[in-house]
Amino acid sequence: MLLQIKPESDTPIYMQVRDQIVEGVAAGELAPGDPLPSVRELARDIGVNYHTVNKAYALLQDEGYVRVFGRRGVVVSQPPAADDAYLLEIKAKLLKLMAEAKSKGMKPGEIVQLAEELSKQELSEGGESNE
Amino acid sequence: MLLQIKPESDTPIYMQVRDQIVEGVAAGELAPGDPLPSVRELARDIGVNYHTVNKAYALLQDEGYVRVFGRRGVVVSQPPAADDAYLLEIKAKLLKLMAEAKSKGMKPGEIVQLAEELSKQELSEGGESNE
Repeated sequence: MLLQIKPESDTPIYMQVRDQIVEGVAAGELAPGDPLPSVRELARDIGVNYHTVNKAYALLQDEGYVRVFGRRGVVVSQPPAADDAYLLEIKAKLLKLMAEAKSKGMKPGEIVQLAEELSKQELSEGGESNE
Repeated sequence: MLLQIKPESDTPIYMQVRDQIVEGVAAGELAPGDPLPSVRELARDIGVNYHTVNKAYALLQDEGYVRVFGRRGVVVSQPPAADDAYLLEIKAKLLKLMAEAKSKGMKPGEIVQLAEELSKQELSEGGESNE
């Protein structure tokens, strides 16, 4: 799995690292128990600051996506299942998206439609993933 | 319109300020031409650093939500309508949400369903806003 960092993005680099590892877990590219590069290795590989990777791994550990064993390495972990607190968090994020879109003249229903299209793409991609 | 800052949130404070002003525009609480507090006033009112409010206003100005006239004040502006670039941005955000939810055992369809519920709530709230 190759991380792609965009320094010019609005998303902070540590969050880009975090997001891509979460996406790797979602796509099944990373499974619980898989080893990840150490903080130092990953920082060197993607050309970012040690502390940036450290921050990403600390957040991922907080969220249950990895376990960090200091110099002995970093291992992918099984994230906790969605619970009520997580549902509230997702709802808040969706509402935020809808508010922004509404301020730009889009209707909430258009976001629903986009989500529907994306979920179908995602499912069809999932069906082809046995290569 | 009262901003509520949560210092303990994962969202940086300047982004909380930005998000709440965007939500104010979406909800129709803030209309183009409405005056906003100056950087200094807002920083004092919500008890955060001057530079934090400055960063929020600079971002909002970049996005077209406000115009900042230095000491003469800050005014709400009409944000640009959703274009293709914005649609790509929204799709990326939705895909990110779906990936995160999927890694926690939720199906993409559940996100669509949540979005649908929220869009209905939003519409019914919109219908009551003429009090």
